[in-house]
Amino acid sequence: MLLDEVLESNKKFVEKFNEIKLSPIPRKKLAIVTCMDTRLTDGFLEQAMGIKRGDAKIIKNAGNNVLNHDVIRSVAAAIFALGVEEVMLVGHHDCGMTRVGAEKLKITMVERGISTNEIAKVDIQKWIGAIESEESNVIKGVEKIKNSSFIPDDIPVHGLIIDPLTGIVDVLYNGYEVQI
Amino acid sequence: MLLDEVLESNKKFVEKFNEIKLSPIPRKKLAIVTCMDTRLTDGFLEQAMGIKRGDAKIIKNAGNNVLNHDVIRSVAAAIFALGVEEVMLVGHHDCGMTRVGAEKLKITMVERGISTNEIAKVDIQKWIGAIESEESNVIKGVEKIKNSSFIPDDIPVHGLIIDPLTGIVDVLYNGYEVQI
Repeated sequence: MLLDEVLESNKKFVEKFNEIKLSPIPRKKLAIVTCMDTRLTDGFLEQAMGIKRGDAKIIKNAGNNVLNHDVIRSVAAAIFALGVEEVMLVGHHDCGMTRVGAEKLKITMVERGISTNEIAKVDIQKWIGAIESEESNVIKGVEKIKNSSFIPDDIPVHGLIIDPLTGIVDVLYNGYEVQI
Repeated sequence: MLLDEVLESNKKFVEKFNEIKLSPIPRKKLAIVTCMDTRLTDGFLEQAMGIKRGDAKIIKNAGNNVLNHDVIRSVAAAIFALGVEEVMLVGHHDCGMTRVGAEKLKITMVERGISTNEIAKVDIQKWIGAIESEESNVIKGVEKIKNSSFIPDDIPVHGLIIDPLTGIVDVLYNGYEVQI
């Protein structure tokens, strides 16, 4: 089982790990909202942005989508409880959430035993958070964060996009206006 | 501005980075749900679990909370669109979300210009996702994922907790039952 493998790796990690007491308050007063994508893990995104352990809060979901209040409340907690003063929403090229088709998804769900009644209750493509374009999704997300009545007006919210192949970061929204 | 600093770091990163074409499909067929905490970034959590870039989908929010449908839809996308077969919800000791008090939070929000009318519309402690105990919050989250009508019954959902100081991972829920 994968759990045993993880626990075995953890034992080896702990033996060699040098304890460093870090504050939960992010050093760079930064919150990053990005995608759960498997290529943005194990330090890649952070290293591509010059972010070290202890520098930033990192929020991740499928498609770096600001769909409902979960991202907003996490960003709000980062601002009001943890001193964050700047937000960067980072999308990425080749996002799997652009390729989610409702019909194929429904078939897979039913095959895996999900109730057709439950599926029929929702607009499945909206429910799962499928996106049309990585760029417009970043802009939309930035605007949702900026327009939330729970986010202070003076917090800059930037919109960026990273290439998971090259690591290149481009600016789509510079905190105040769209750049594309 | 922090954005300029990030772009400057990115230039240096890209110059040295060796491109590797990785699939968006996670090698270990694993999705991890964890906290946005600043100490779990830049590879720490992944390395403590033996997870390499390309191995897993990683979902993060304030307090690794399964509050509304955002975590469920991300896990569902990982399962139905990206071949995930196992889920690990990983809480951590010393979580800032255990220290969020409603009154202090409201004062800070008003000081930062948030409308008292908007604040009065919600139960702010619930809204922000404050938690009482890191352990019980992991168990609750595992149960919410397992009980969702959009998650297949045969997907094991484990509940773990990591110490951000030592890196030690303990099992709270082994996929089938509570371990504490």
